[in-house]
Amino acid sequence: MDQPWTKRQRPERLERRIEFDDYETTRLFLEQLNELAEQRQCYPDISFGRTYVNLTLRAEPDQSPVGEPELAFAAAIDALVP
Amino acid sequence: MDQPWTKRQRPERLERRIEFDDYETTRLFLEQLNELAEQRQCYPDISFGRTYVNLTLRAEPDQSPVGEPELAFAAAIDALVP
Repeated sequence: MDQPWTKRQRPERLERRIEFDDYETTRLFLEQLNELAEQRQCYPDISFGRTYVNLTLRAEPDQSPVGEPELAFAAAIDALVP
Repeated sequence: MDQPWTKRQRPERLERRIEFDDYETTRLFLEQLNELAEQRQCYPDISFGRTYVNLTLRAEPDQSPVGEPELAFAAAIDALVP
């Protein structure tokens, strides 16, 4: 299966960039992502502009390796991408 | 007056980092910022995590010097900071 996330080191983390057609689509994605983050009490680092979102998922506490919770969160985020 | 924005070069841009006490405050600020951006049809680059927001304002079109519109937008953003 296609894995859209890149695993990076020091600290270990998952990163994904998503492009959107317009600001409305970007905004809708960010709102759904916010709901997901609040449900999980898990707040990724997010960078966005008009038509892109960059996500970074880190394990808690700092410097922990990426594990099942981060992979599950990543999959839940993937399900939001239009 | 205190100028919380830093002007950077190549391309010329304004940057500001804002820290918040909790996710609710961060979130409220981001929602107000979204309304401002939609009103002005002007979309800054935004990075955020649970308790911080980093903002970058660039002039349009790309590579233009920062001018009155960006300074006015920066001042309007400042007014949202709790």
